[in-house]
Amino acid sequence: MAKKYVYSFGGGKADGKESMKNLLGGKGANLAEMAGHTSLRLPVPPGFTITTEVCTYYYQNKKTYPKVLREEVTKALRRVETLMDRQFGDPANPLLVSVRSGARRSMPGMMETVLNVGLTAKTIPGLITQSGGNQRFVYDAYRRLIMMYSDVVMEKAAGIEPKEDQGIRKQLEHIMATLKKEKGCQTDTDLTVEDLKTLCTLFKQRIKGILNKDFPDDPYEQLWGGISAVFSSWNGKRAISYRRIENIPEEWGTAVNVQTMVFGNMGNDSATGVAFTRNPGNGENRFYGEYLIDAQGEDVVAGIRTPAPINEYSKSGQNKNMVTLERGMPTIYKQLFCIQRRLEKHYHDMQDIEFTIEKGRLFMLQCRVGKRNGPAAVRMAVDMLKEKLITKDQALMRVTPAQLDELLHPIIDPKAESSHTVLVKGLPAGPGGANGQIVFSALDAVEWTRQGKTVILVREETNPEDVEGMRAAQAILTARGGMTSHAALVARGWGKCCIVGCGNLHIDYNKKEMKTENKILNEGDWITLNGTKGTVYDGRLPMIDAAEENKVLGDFLKLCEGVKKLGIRTNADTPEDAKKAKQFGAEGIGLFRTEHMFYGKGSDEALFILRKMIVSNTKEERELALTELFPYVKKDMKGTLEAMDGYPVVVRLLDPPLHEFVPREQAKLEQLAQDLKITREELSKRAERLHESNPMMGHRGVRLGVTYPEISKMQIRAVFEAAAELLKEGKHPYPEIMIPVVGDIKELNDQFIIATQTYTEVLKKYGLKKIKHMFGTMIEIPRACIVAGKLAEPAEFFSFGTNDLTQMGFGFSRDDIGGFLPDYLEKGILSEDPFQSIDQEGIGELIKMGIQRGRKTRKDLEVGICGEHGGEPRSVEFCHRVGMDYVSCSPFRVPIAKLAAAQAVLKEKKK
Amino acid sequence: MAKKYVYSFGGGKADGKESMKNLLGGKGANLAEMAGHTSLRLPVPPGFTITTEVCTYYYQNKKTYPKVLREEVTKALRRVETLMDRQFGDPANPLLVSVRSGARRSMPGMMETVLNVGLTAKTIPGLITQSGGNQRFVYDAYRRLIMMYSDVVMEKAAGIEPKEDQGIRKQLEHIMATLKKEKGCQTDTDLTVEDLKTLCTLFKQRIKGILNKDFPDDPYEQLWGGISAVFSSWNGKRAISYRRIENIPEEWGTAVNVQTMVFGNMGNDSATGVAFTRNPGNGENRFYGEYLIDAQGEDVVAGIRTPAPINEYSKSGQNKNMVTLERGMPTIYKQLFCIQRRLEKHYHDMQDIEFTIEKGRLFMLQCRVGKRNGPAAVRMAVDMLKEKLITKDQALMRVTPAQLDELLHPIIDPKAESSHTVLVKGLPAGPGGANGQIVFSALDAVEWTRQGKTVILVREETNPEDVEGMRAAQAILTARGGMTSHAALVARGWGKCCIVGCGNLHIDYNKKEMKTENKILNEGDWITLNGTKGTVYDGRLPMIDAAEENKVLGDFLKLCEGVKKLGIRTNADTPEDAKKAKQFGAEGIGLFRTEHMFYGKGSDEALFILRKMIVSNTKEERELALTELFPYVKKDMKGTLEAMDGYPVVVRLLDPPLHEFVPREQAKLEQLAQDLKITREELSKRAERLHESNPMMGHRGVRLGVTYPEISKMQIRAVFEAAAELLKEGKHPYPEIMIPVVGDIKELNDQFIIATQTYTEVLKKYGLKKIKHMFGTMIEIPRACIVAGKLAEPAEFFSFGTNDLTQMGFGFSRDDIGGFLPDYLEKGILSEDPFQSIDQEGIGELIKMGIQRGRKTRKDLEVGICGEHGGEPRSVEFCHRVGMDYVSCSPFRVPIAKLAAAQAVLKEKKK
Repeated sequence: MAKKYVYSFGGGKADGKESMKNLLGGKGANLAEMAGHTSLRLPVPPGFTITTEVCTYYYQNKKTYPKVLREEVTKALRRVETLMDRQFGDPANPLLVSVRSGARRSMPGMMETVLNVGLTAKTIPGLITQSGGNQRFVYDAYRRLIMMYSDVVMEKAAGIEPKEDQGIRKQLEHIMATLKKEKGCQTDTDLTVEDLKTLCTLFKQRIKGILNKDFPDDPYEQLWGGISAVFSSWNGKRAISYRRIENIPEEWGTAVNVQTMVFGNMGNDSATGVAFTRNPGNGENRFYGEYLIDAQGEDVVAGIRTPAPINEYSKSGQNKNMVTLERGMPTIYKQLFCIQRRLEKHYHDMQDIEFTIEKGRLFMLQCRVGKRNGPAAVRMAVDMLKEKLITKDQALMRVTPAQLDELLHPIIDPKAESSHTVLVKGLPAGPGGANGQIVFSALDAVEWTRQGKTVILVREETNPEDVEGMRAAQAILTARGGMTSHAALVARGWGKCCIVGCGNLHIDYNKKEMKTENKILNEGDWITLNGTKGTVYDGRLPMIDAAEENKVLGDFLKLCEGVKKLGIRTNADTPEDAKKAKQFGAEGIGLFRTEHMFYGKGSDEALFILRKMIVSNTKEERELALTELFPYVKKDMKGTLEAMDGYPVVVRLLDPPLHEFVPREQAKLEQLAQDLKITREELSKRAERLHESNPMMGHRGVRLGVTYPEISKMQIRAVFEAAAELLKEGKHPYPEIMIPVVGDIKELNDQFIIATQTYTEVLKKYGLKKIKHMFGTMIEIPRACIVAGKLAEPAEFFSFGTNDLTQMGFGFSRDDIGGFLPDYLEKGILSEDPFQSIDQEGIGELIKMGIQRGRKTRKDLEVGICGEHGGEPRSVEFCHRVGMDYVSCSPFRVPIAKLAAAQAVLKEKKK
Repeated sequence: MAKKYVYSFGGGKADGKESMKNLLGGKGANLAEMAGHTSLRLPVPPGFTITTEVCTYYYQNKKTYPKVLREEVTKALRRVETLMDRQFGDPANPLLVSVRSGARRSMPGMMETVLNVGLTAKTIPGLITQSGGNQRFVYDAYRRLIMMYSDVVMEKAAGIEPKEDQGIRKQLEHIMATLKKEKGCQTDTDLTVEDLKTLCTLFKQRIKGILNKDFPDDPYEQLWGGISAVFSSWNGKRAISYRRIENIPEEWGTAVNVQTMVFGNMGNDSATGVAFTRNPGNGENRFYGEYLIDAQGEDVVAGIRTPAPINEYSKSGQNKNMVTLERGMPTIYKQLFCIQRRLEKHYHDMQDIEFTIEKGRLFMLQCRVGKRNGPAAVRMAVDMLKEKLITKDQALMRVTPAQLDELLHPIIDPKAESSHTVLVKGLPAGPGGANGQIVFSALDAVEWTRQGKTVILVREETNPEDVEGMRAAQAILTARGGMTSHAALVARGWGKCCIVGCGNLHIDYNKKEMKTENKILNEGDWITLNGTKGTVYDGRLPMIDAAEENKVLGDFLKLCEGVKKLGIRTNADTPEDAKKAKQFGAEGIGLFRTEHMFYGKGSDEALFILRKMIVSNTKEERELALTELFPYVKKDMKGTLEAMDGYPVVVRLLDPPLHEFVPREQAKLEQLAQDLKITREELSKRAERLHESNPMMGHRGVRLGVTYPEISKMQIRAVFEAAAELLKEGKHPYPEIMIPVVGDIKELNDQFIIATQTYTEVLKKYGLKKIKHMFGTMIEIPRACIVAGKLAEPAEFFSFGTNDLTQMGFGFSRDDIGGFLPDYLEKGILSEDPFQSIDQEGIGELIKMGIQRGRKTRKDLEVGICGEHGGEPRSVEFCHRVGMDYVSCSPFRVPIAKLAAAQAVLKEKKK
C-alpha cells in the first residue's frame, strides 16, 4: 500500500485517531479523535493533517515534498469544500483555511501559524456575502492575513533575518500605528473599512518594496506558502532551542494542520471561548470557563477585553456582573456542556477545550488534557478514582511529584506574584514561598524573631555557625553557593524556603544593604521569595496555604502504599524531625547525622565540648572531652530512637572534617582558649593544623574513626546504651550503625572491632542478651563501589551517599560548582545539576556496580540511599529500578518520594 | 605412600633439594641442595629437616605432632650419628645439634634458634675429650645452651610473658654481669673454667626459682623442647607482625632444621667466616669475604672483633695488616675457593656463603643468593650474561628497579651515614642524597646559590611561587605534605632529593630556625638529607656518586629494548628536560604541562601576563592578556617539540585552578594592580572570587576551557603554529593535544570543535595540508572511566592521570592525606601510599574498565599513563598487564620504567 501523507477529518468522520500522535502530531490526532471517534463526532471544522513523515521527507530531500502530496492535499481540500459547501478560491462562496503546526508533543508558540488563507482580491466579495455584508470584518481579516503571511512566510522564504525591530511585521505595525494616529483611533476597532482598505494597500506596497515581490493573490500559492512555512519553522531558532531544553528529538518533525476557518467575530451571535471540564485551580468537578462575544481566539489570549464567565460557577470578582454563556446562549451552552462531559468520559481526564460560535453555530477547535495545579491534581485523581472514571494506577500517575510538592509548602498567592516583577533570580534551593524583613546576620535573625518579627536571612553564603539564625528565619537567601551548598541542604532538610547563588546580588555587611541591578535594599526592608522558582520580589506579597487539602492528600498518599516497593525513610537528626517525618509516613530514619546535634537550639553546651575535643592535643585531653560529651550524645540518640520506636534508625558516625567545627567568632575562640587553659595563639595553632586544602577529600568520616578510635567508641556506646535503656523501658529501638567515607574493607573491619567490643560491654552492663541492630557502611567513595563485594563481608547494609559519590565521581566540589555549572547547563554539557538528580549514566553505573557486587557477597544486604537525591522523583525511580530496599530524604519530601516510588512501579509495569 | 615428615641431608646425599622450598623452607632446601646435589656434595654438617607440613599439623592439632614424627626424627638422628660417628647423648663421644627455623622466605631474627642441644651433665666430659681437653670451650658452650634454652624454650613453654628487663634471659645476664664484676673480668673470655661452672650452677638455680622446673638434663627433652620452641615461634608476636609487613601467609609455616654442631671456636685451627662469590659492593667478579679465627658465627655478627680478609682482594683500610685465610690456611682457602666457584656455577648467581672450620676441617653452613647494591647488581647482570652464566632474560630480572635508581642519584656515603644518628624523619619524596646549608625562603635559596653556596630549602610546605628557589636548592625539606604534595611532585620531576611531611619538624620563619625533638638549627647550618629513606642528619655528610658505572648501565638498559613492549615516555615541560629525557632513552613526551612554563627561570614576564589574564574581569580583558601571552606559549611549545623531534609530545591544556596562579607576595600584587589599573582592593576581590573550598574538584581543566574557550583556543593555536613553523623548517613535530579533567563526552566535543577550527585556521595561515597530530583526553575523573566508551568516539588517545584518579577514586586529597596516612599504614589499612603505587584492586579496576570500554569503541585507541605512577615499577607492570601502549614518567625515572617494563614481559612469560 502506498504511504498515506494526508489525513482528513470532519463531518463525523476522520482518517486518523488519537493514538496516531506520532504520525499526525498532538493537535492533528486530537482533531481526528474529536471529529471521527464514534463516541464523540463533535462539530469540528473540517480539515486535514499533513503527516510528520512529510516533514522528515522535506528535510531529507532538500526541502521538497513527496510527489503525491500535491494530489493528496487537493483531494482532501475537495472533501472539505464538499463538507462546507464552499470552494477554495471561489469568488462567490470562498473557503478559508488556517495552516497550523502540530508536533508529537506540544511546543507552544515555537512554530508558525497562518490564518485566513484563501482570502484574495477575488474572494473578498464572497466572504463579505458570507458575513452578511460585514465589510469591516472582511478587510480586517485580510489585513491580518497580509501581516501574518508576509512575516511568517514571505520574509522567511526570502532568507532574510532582520534585526529585531526591523522585520516586516514591525514595519507593517508601524504603518498601522501611524495611520491610527492620523485618524485619531484608540484601538484597532476604531479603524473604518476605508482605513483598513488603505492599510492593505500600504502593506502590499511596503512588502513589494522590501522583498521585491508581490503579495500572492493566488489562494493555492498562499496555502503552499503556509505549509512550507510551518515545516521550515521546525528548524527555526526558537524551535531548536526549545527542543534542546525539552529533550525533543529533531527526527520527530511536525505535522501541518489545514482546517476550515470559523469566525467568532462575525457579530453578536458569534463568540469564542476556553473552558475546563473541572476547575483547574482546585480540582472541583465543575465545568469552568470564559468566553468573549464577537471575538477571535487571539483576542482572548491578548487580554484586551475581559472575558465573561460561561456559568455562575466560573464567576470571579472581575466578571461577576457579566452575562454568562449559560444565560446568553442557553442552547449553545447546553450543547457545550454535554460535549465537555462526553469529552471527559472519553479521555478519562480533565480536558482543556477551545470553542468558537460562528453565527449561532458551535465549533470545537481543540481539546487536550488540561493543566492543573498541585491541589487540583490531587483532588481530581482522588475524585476520578471514586467516580470510577480512572483506575488506581491511573490515579497515581495523574499527580506529578512536583505538584505534590506544591501542597507541602505555603506559596505566594499566584495572582499577586503574576503582577510583580522579579527583583533578582537565583537557584530554587528550598521550595515554597515566604516573605519577611531582611536581616544580614544569623544573630539578628534570632534576635528579631524573638522580638516577634518575620525575617529573611540574607548572606553571601552560610556556614554551620549560622544554623540557629537559619532556623529562626522564614527563609534564606544567599548570593553564593549551589543547590547543594550548606544553605540549600539545611533549608531543604527543614522544608524551608531558600534561594541560593543569586549571582546578581551584592551584599555589603558593613552598610547592611544588598544591591541588585536596579535597586538597593536595606536591613528591615520587606522581600518575598518564591523558593520553587528561585525568584525574589521587592515588598511583602501575600501567601496562601496550599496544604488545606490534607484530607484529600492523605487519601491520595494511601494509594501509594499498596503499590510502591521501596521503603521510604527520612533524614532526621532530632526527635522533632523524626516525629514530623513519621506523620508524613516515613518508615524509619535513613540518615541520622550525629554531628547535627551540635547545631540548633540548646546545643551550645554540647558544641562547646565538641570543640574542646576537636582541638585536643593529646589522646588524654580528647578522652576527657569525650567523656563530657557522652551524656549529650546518648540523650540525643535516645530521643530519636524513641521517636522512631519500632522503626530502623541509621546512625552515621561523625562525618565532617573536624575543622568545620572550629568556631569563627572571636568571643567563642576566646572562651574556648580559656576553658582549655591555653593561649589564643596556641588555640589558633591547633585549629590551623586542622586546616585542609581539600577538606571534602581530607581527614573525615571513617578516617577520623581510624585515627581517633575513642571518638567512634564514644558514639557507638551512646547508641547502644540509649537502645539498652529504651529496651528496659519496653520500647523497640532498632539502630543501624553506619560508618561513613569508607573505601576499603580494612577501614570497616577496624571500626567493627570497636563496635562489636562496645556492644558486648553494653550488653553486659545492662544485663541484656541482645539489642536488635545492624552494622553497615555508607557507600560514597567511588572505590567503595568497586570493592563493594568485599565491603559486604562485614557490612550488613549499604547506604549510598550520592552527594559525595557525585562529588568524587565527577570530581565536582559541590561548593565550587557555581564557577562553571551555569556555563555547563547553558551549553548543554550537563542537562541538569547532577547534585539534583542522579547522573544515571555515570554515577548511576557506579551505584549499580556497588549493589550487584555487594549482593553477590551477601544476598540479603540491605541497600538504601541517604543522599539528597533520595527525595528527587527521577532518582527515586532509578533507586527502584536498581533494586534498592529504601530511599531516605528530608521529612518534607517523604510524600514526594512515596509517590515517585509508586509511579516507578507503575512505569515498570507499563514496560 | 605415607607422608614423609623428615628429610635427611649430609654425607654427600640428601632427601630434599632446592626446589622443595615450600616443604623444607629456604634453609632446609639449600642445605639439602648443597649436601646432596651431584654437582655439589659439599661438606655440610649432616642433619635433617622437619617439614613445614608438620608446622601446619602442629597448629591444626592443638600443638601436637603427627604420630610417626618421633620415629622419623629418631631414624634421621641415627643416620647423623652414623655419619658423624658420634651418638646423641653418648657420654664418651656425644653428638651436639643446633635446632633452627626455616620458612619459605627468609624471616631474619623473627624465630627461635637453640644451639648446643645435647649437652648435658653426662655428655660434657665427652665434648671435653672431643675438643682436645678444652674445658673452657665446653663450659662456655653449656653456659650458652642454658641461657638460650631457658629463654627460648622453658620460659615460653611456661606461658610467661615477662616485662622487658625482667625475663629469664635478662636475669641470667645480670647474674653473669655481677660475677664478671666480682671477678674483675672485662670480657666473657676472661672468665675461668671455674667461673663458668659456677655460672651454670647459678643459672640452673635461678631457673628453678622462677619456673619451679629443673633445667632438662636429658638430650631428647632438649631436642624436642627446641623443636617445639621453633614451631611455637612461628606464631610469636615478632613473627606475626613481620609476616604482616612482608605479606607472608600464615599457612606457610616454618620448617625445623636439626643439624650437627660444628665449632669454629675450638682453637687456632678453627675459624668461621662469611664470603661472597663476587664483590657485593661493586659487582666485580672477585671472591670476597671475611673470617675470624677461633670464633663462632655469632661473634662475627656481634662485631666485637675485627674480622680478617679472606684474601688480598678483600682487604680494607681496617684489616689490611691481618693474615688472610689464603695465607693462613692455604689448603682450606683453596677448597673454599673451589666450592664458591662451583656454587656460583650451580646457582647461576652470586652466593653469600657461611663457613666454619673446625679443627682444620671445612664445613659449609649456608649458601644463599647474596644481597648487593645497585651498581653491583647491574655489573653482575651484564658480566654474567657475557660469561654465559645466565641468559638475557635472567640478566634483566637480576636488577631491581630500586637498585637501578641507586645509580641515578648521588648518595650519602653509606659508611658516614651508618655512623650518624637521624635528626628527624619524613617521607622519602625524592631519592638520592644531598647536603647543604639551611635556608627558609625560595628567595634566599636563589640568592645564596647565586653567591655560590649550597643550600637546602626548608619550608612548611611549598607552592608554585617557590619553584625557582626549589630549583636552585640542592634539596627540599618540608614539614607538611605527602608523597604527592607540590614539593614532592616538583622534586621528583627534576630527580631532586626531597623529604616531605616531617611531622616532628617545627619551623619558625620569623626566627629563621627549625626545631626537632632534640635540636634547634638555624639558617646557614648544614644538614644532609637521604631522600631515598627520608632521613635527615645534622651536619655535612660526604656524598658519593653511584652513577660512575654509566657504561655498564647503558649496556644493561640496552637489554630492555628487545624485550619490553611498553613505550617509555617522559613528563617534561621544558626543552632542557626533554633533551635530558631523550638521553635517558625516552620515546616521546607523555605529559607536557603548559602551565609549568610559567615557573622557573626567565618566566617572570609570562607569569605576570598569565596573572593579568586570570584576574581579568571581562572577556575583552582576558583576550587582551591572552594575545600578549601567545608568543611566550608558542616559543615554549616550539622549543619542546623541536627537542623531541620525530617523537610524540602530549600537550596538556591548562589544568590547575586559576587561584593557584594568584601571587601571594604583596609586591607582586601591587604591581599587578597597577598594571591592570585597578585598586588593590579590587584585585583582592577578583582574586577572592577565584577562591574555592575544594580546588582539586573545582573550576579547573576542561572546565576552564568550557567557560573560557578563548584560553583553550590560544593554547591550541600556539601548539599548531609552533608545529607549522617546525614543519617549514624541515622538522617532524608530532603534538598530541590533551584535554584534562574530562568527565563527559560533551566536554570533549566542546573543546574539539575549538581545536578543529583552530587547526584549519593554522593550516590556512601557513599554507599547509596537514600537521601530524592527535586529539585526546586525560582520564583522571572516575566518571571518565565509566563513560570511556563514549569518550573514545572523539578521543584518539587516552592518558590516565592516575594522581587525580587516585584522589577522586579514594576521596583522598593528596595534600591532606598526611592527617591519616601514617595511621593507615601503621594499622595496615593501606599496605602502601596509593599515590606511590597504583592501587590495583580499586583504581586499577577503574583503569581496566576505562581501557576496555575505550578500545571497544576505538580499536586503535592509544593508551598511556602520565601520573607519577608511570615511573613506579609495580605500577609499570600493571600498565603492561592491562595493555597500555606507553607509560610516562619524569626523566630520571625513564631507565627504571624501562627495566620495569621489560621485567613485566618476562614475568608474564614465566606464567
